[in-house]
Amino acid sequence: MTEYRDLTGDDIESLAVGAWILGTGGGGSPYLGLLNMRRLYAEGKRVKLMSPEALDDDDAVAVVSNQGAPLVGQERLTDSRNIARAVELMEEITGKRFRAIMSLEIGGGNAIQPLMAAAHLGRPVVDADCMGRAYPEAQMTSFAVGDLQPYPLTSVDPRGVESVVYKVPSWKWMERVSRKICTEYGSVASTCKAPRTGAEIKRWGILHSTTKAIRIGEAVRAAQRQNADPIAAILQVEPGKVLYQGKVADVERRTTEGFLRGRTRFDGLDAWRDSHMEINFQNEWIVAWVDAAPVAMSPDLICVLDSVSGEAIGTETIRYGQRVTVMALPPPPVFLSPKGLEHVGPQAFGYDIPYTSVFQA
Amino acid sequence: MTEYRDLTGDDIESLAVGAWILGTGGGGSPYLGLLNMRRLYAEGKRVKLMSPEALDDDDAVAVVSNQGAPLVGQERLTDSRNIARAVELMEEITGKRFRAIMSLEIGGGNAIQPLMAAAHLGRPVVDADCMGRAYPEAQMTSFAVGDLQPYPLTSVDPRGVESVVYKVPSWKWMERVSRKICTEYGSVASTCKAPRTGAEIKRWGILHSTTKAIRIGEAVRAAQRQNADPIAAILQVEPGKVLYQGKVADVERRTTEGFLRGRTRFDGLDAWRDSHMEINFQNEWIVAWVDAAPVAMSPDLICVLDSVSGEAIGTETIRYGQRVTVMALPPPPVFLSPKGLEHVGPQAFGYDIPYTSVFQA
Repeated sequence: MTEYRDLTGDDIESLAVGAWILGTGGGGSPYLGLLNMRRLYAEGKRVKLMSPEALDDDDAVAVVSNQGAPLVGQERLTDSRNIARAVELMEEITGKRFRAIMSLEIGGGNAIQPLMAAAHLGRPVVDADCMGRAYPEAQMTSFAVGDLQPYPLTSVDPRGVESVVYKVPSWKWMERVSRKICTEYGSVASTCKAPRTGAEIKRWGILHSTTKAIRIGEAVRAAQRQNADPIAAILQVEPGKVLYQGKVADVERRTTEGFLRGRTRFDGLDAWRDSHMEINFQNEWIVAWVDAAPVAMSPDLICVLDSVSGEAIGTETIRYGQRVTVMALPPPPVFLSPKGLEHVGPQAFGYDIPYTSVFQA
Repeated sequence: MTEYRDLTGDDIESLAVGAWILGTGGGGSPYLGLLNMRRLYAEGKRVKLMSPEALDDDDAVAVVSNQGAPLVGQERLTDSRNIARAVELMEEITGKRFRAIMSLEIGGGNAIQPLMAAAHLGRPVVDADCMGRAYPEAQMTSFAVGDLQPYPLTSVDPRGVESVVYKVPSWKWMERVSRKICTEYGSVASTCKAPRTGAEIKRWGILHSTTKAIRIGEAVRAAQRQNADPIAAILQVEPGKVLYQGKVADVERRTTEGFLRGRTRFDGLDAWRDSHMEINFQNEWIVAWVDAAPVAMSPDLICVLDSVSGEAIGTETIRYGQRVTVMALPPPPVFLSPKGLEHVGPQAFGYDIPYTSVFQA
C-alpha cells in the first residue's frame, strides 16, 4: 500500500462530486470548498493524501469540519483560512503538533475542509473520516460509538471569535454546548474536533473513505463526459440500490436551532408513477417513506440524485420540479451494532420505528 | 495603608449584607455563598483581603463571577469548588499563575465568589471590583469602559462541562458567546473573566469596594442589634438618598435568554401615599419611575430595601406585600463619562431617555 499520494486537481474535482453524493443531502455543498481548492492549487499549493495505516499509534491527528446549518453555508462564503485557524487554535490549547488532518465526515463540503487546512498548514490529509457519510450531530460518529474522549473542540468564526469546549462529560454535552456557540456565530462555525491518535483512527476510523468518494465522483464525471447513464455508473463502483424515481412535488424547510429541518415529497415517474415518496431531513436525509411506509432510514445512506447529471441534490437546494433518483448506499458496519444504532438509528432522530436495512432483503 | 488583612467570619457576614444592597437587586443572593464561607471557615480555611495598591504592575489577577439569571442561582445550590475550578482552568489555558483573585461585581453573591475561590486556592482577594455594584452584561464594567482586552473567559458547570471563550473582537461578542454557553448550562455558570494585570486594576478597577460593602453591612447589622433604624444607619456611612417608601403591589418576572427580566410596582406609604413607583429590571433594577416620570436610572444605584430590616430585596425574590424603601446610592465616577454612559446608561438597556442623576439636583 502506498503511504502517501499527491492529490491532483482532477482528484479534488471528483472528490467534490463523490462527497456530495455521500453527504446524503447534508454536509454542506462542496462547491465553495472546491473553488477555494482550485485557487490554492492555482497558487501552487499541493495536498498529499496519507493512508491511515501509515499513521504511528501515537501520532496526533486533527479532525475538522464546518459545523452548522447547510443553508447558511451557502450564504456565507467559505474562506479556507478559517478551518486552518481552528486547527492552529487546537495546537495552541493542547501544546501538541498534529502530524496530519482528517475529515469528520466525508459527506459534502466537509470532505474538502481538511484539504483547505492541509494546504495552508503543509500537512497531509488522512484517507478516512468517522461517519462514512454526513450526520448532523457530534455524537453521530464512529469515535462516539467507540466511546473515545469527546473533548476538546475549537470553534472559529471569521470575525475573530474563537471558543473552546474544553471538557464535557459526554458526547451529547459536546453537541449541546458547541451547537449553541455555532448558533450564536450565525449557525456556521469552523471546528477542530477532539484530537485523535493514530491508534484510535486505525481502530475506530472509517478508513479509505476519501478514496471512495473520489472513485464515486470519477464514475459520475466519466459518465457525464461520455453521455452515459451516471446512475448506472455509480452502481458499477458501489453496491447501491435504486429506491425511487420521480420529481419534486413539495419542500418544507426551516433553519432552526443550528439545523436545517424539513421534508420533501416526490411524485413518481415510470415504474413508480402511482406511488409517492416523502423524505424527512435534519441537515441530512434521515427516513424515506413510500405511501406512508418507511422504505429506507439512517444509517443506510439515502442519496437524492439529479436523474440526468447523477450529481447529488442537497437538503438546502432541493426545489420543486427537479427530476430525482433516490438511491441507497450501504452504511459503515460500525453503525449496525446495537451501540451504533443507538447513536444513528431512526430512534436517535426521534422516529419511533425499528431500523430495517435496505440491504438485508 | 495595610497591604493585607485577615477577613474574619464577622466581616464576611457584613460583606454578605452590604454586597446584597450594592447588588441593586441583582448579582444573585449572597446567602448560599455565605453558607459556603461559614463552612470553609469552620473547616479552618481563612481568606486575606489585599489592598489593590499592594499589587505589582505585572501581577496577574483572576476576575471571577457567577454568570446567569439570579433566579436559577436560587435553585441550583452553590458549590464553592466550581469557581475555584474556573480559576484553575484559566491558569491551564494561559500557563500563568494568578497572584490574587478579585470580584467582577461587588454586588450580590458575586462579592463572595472570589472568597470561595481564594479559600480553596490559598490566594488573597483584592479589595476591588469593576462594577461597584452589579450589572447583567459583560461589557458593563470599568474594564470595558477602559477598552481593556475582553478575552479569554472560562466557564464551568458542576456536571463537568468546561468552555473557554478564547478570543473575541469586542466586549459585546464576549457577552453574546459566553451568555449562550451559560444558557446551555442551565442559565448559570461559574466564570473566570479576562485576567487583569496589577497595573490595569490600579488604573481601571473600582477600588476598595469590598471594604465599602463590609462597612454598609456592618452599619445595617449594628442597627438591627440595637433596634435602630437601619435605613438611617446606611445614610450615616454612605451619601444615599431615599427616593420612595411603599409596598409591593405587583411583580412581573420572566427568565429569558439567560437573564431575569420584568418590572415591579409599588403603592406609596406616608409621604408617598398618593404616588406610584414602577421599577424595570434586567437582573438588576435599571430605571425607576414615579407616576410615569423617570426618577432614577443606571448608573445610579437603585436599592430596594426591606423597610424594617434594612436588608436588600432581589429582583428574583421581591413579592407582593413587602414594605420597601427605595434608596439611590452614587455610581462609580468611571461610568459618568460619555463612554461610561454608552456602556451602562439607560440607553444601553434600551430606554430612550437621557441619563439624569439623582445626585445632581
